[in-house]
Amino acid sequence: MPGTLWIVGLGPGGPELRTGRATAVVSAADAVVGYGPYVDQCADLLREEQLVERGTMGQEEERAERAVALAVEGRGVALVSSGDTGIFGMAALALRAVAAVPEDRRPGVEVVPGVTAGTAAAALLGAPLGDFATVSLSDVLVPWEQVESRLSALAATDLALTLYNPRSRTRTWQLDRVRELLLEHRDPATPVALATDVGRPEQHVEVATLGDFDAERVAMRTLVLVAGPTVERLGPWLVTARGR
Amino acid sequence: MPGTLWIVGLGPGGPELRTGRATAVVSAADAVVGYGPYVDQCADLLREEQLVERGTMGQEEERAERAVALAVEGRGVALVSSGDTGIFGMAALALRAVAAVPEDRRPGVEVVPGVTAGTAAAALLGAPLGDFATVSLSDVLVPWEQVESRLSALAATDLALTLYNPRSRTRTWQLDRVRELLLEHRDPATPVALATDVGRPEQHVEVATLGDFDAERVAMRTLVLVAGPTVERLGPWLVTARGR
Repeated sequence: MPGTLWIVGLGPGGPELRTGRATAVVSAADAVVGYGPYVDQCADLLREEQLVERGTMGQEEERAERAVALAVEGRGVALVSSGDTGIFGMAALALRAVAAVPEDRRPGVEVVPGVTAGTAAAALLGAPLGDFATVSLSDVLVPWEQVESRLSALAATDLALTLYNPRSRTRTWQLDRVRELLLEHRDPATPVALATDVGRPEQHVEVATLGDFDAERVAMRTLVLVAGPTVERLGPWLVTARGR
Repeated sequence: MPGTLWIVGLGPGGPELRTGRATAVVSAADAVVGYGPYVDQCADLLREEQLVERGTMGQEEERAERAVALAVEGRGVALVSSGDTGIFGMAALALRAVAAVPEDRRPGVEVVPGVTAGTAAAALLGAPLGDFATVSLSDVLVPWEQVESRLSALAATDLALTLYNPRSRTRTWQLDRVRELLLEHRDPATPVALATDVGRPEQHVEVATLGDFDAERVAMRTLVLVAGPTVERLGPWLVTARGR
């Protein structure tokens, strides 16, 4: 009899920003599968009887297929990732793998949403978002031109931006190019925040401006938040003009 | 001595999608302040010794000021709202009220992020988001023309959309206007989901298309999710083309 696949967003960082549902399903699972650091993120929940499989970066498709295979065999499987699994997480890959299984052998599926890095970073800054867009700068699966075209269109709006995957070993100049695109429409004094390792003990946040932020200080695990034009600095906080 | 103000996002619906941090601070608070239905949302945490103040709609500013005043007097105060408090929630209003307090009398402040309705709705549908924008259709605080101009710009991109506050007693024709704006650039067959009361026992989700969804079936508590052009229907799920 097919089992269950829980596709779980653990939230950013530790247990504090994890939901009750994520905690419950990881605790109940027979098997926990995920990229190593994400499995470590729920280490407080793991039990000796569980099958725990820590994967490596770049093996996302294999990991999704492995989790589905275990669930097809009848296990309760938690496929875990950081933040919200539907925002540049494992949900899309995992559902593709499940949909490829014949319907009568398909496991039950639940996608468990989580707090995403963008809103967790925003909370550390105050309330810098009003209307906003969430964009990945990764050009692993889409041409860089397409990423640029999205950002050009967004630059001309008054939406705040939360930018994911801003940098990698090979993605080094793209963030400076994003700055150029945004400066075609936006004030260089616009606050830009670099939030790294949000929700973890080593979390740190720097606020600079669109004109002067240092792209070298951005790591792979940094969330770059570009405030909208109506944001104000009030005391230590960034606060959007929109009241509710 | 000044107290503490926790500005808390409870997540959508009940305790399952609430974070550990939200649970902890509401439990620890001396006073819990919020719009009535949001206070009810954390009823499982309330204690007899706590001062609990349930507010009414339209009194957001007074509520924020009341919460701040209680914290200035030395209390630990949880100002609660649904979803993520930084996404069309109470965080901006509350921080404005705190920033107006002289620095030496200002309470400690922590904004506690939450799972927002848009990603919780997405999880119910599968993985329909890739890059996406989050927009409020409320014209209470901004002119409707500005809302239209944002949506016109977004219509021309390939971003999915999560639309908040799509309807109210007086906001009745706006969603049909949004449909018109989107149809200038997007296929009428684009999946549109109406997710109402996400995370609550009465939760229900309908999937229709941009061309044919029925705006009359949208309530104030409905999240309208417009998929991007690359979304696919796979089995019962909507899955974005983006893999990670």
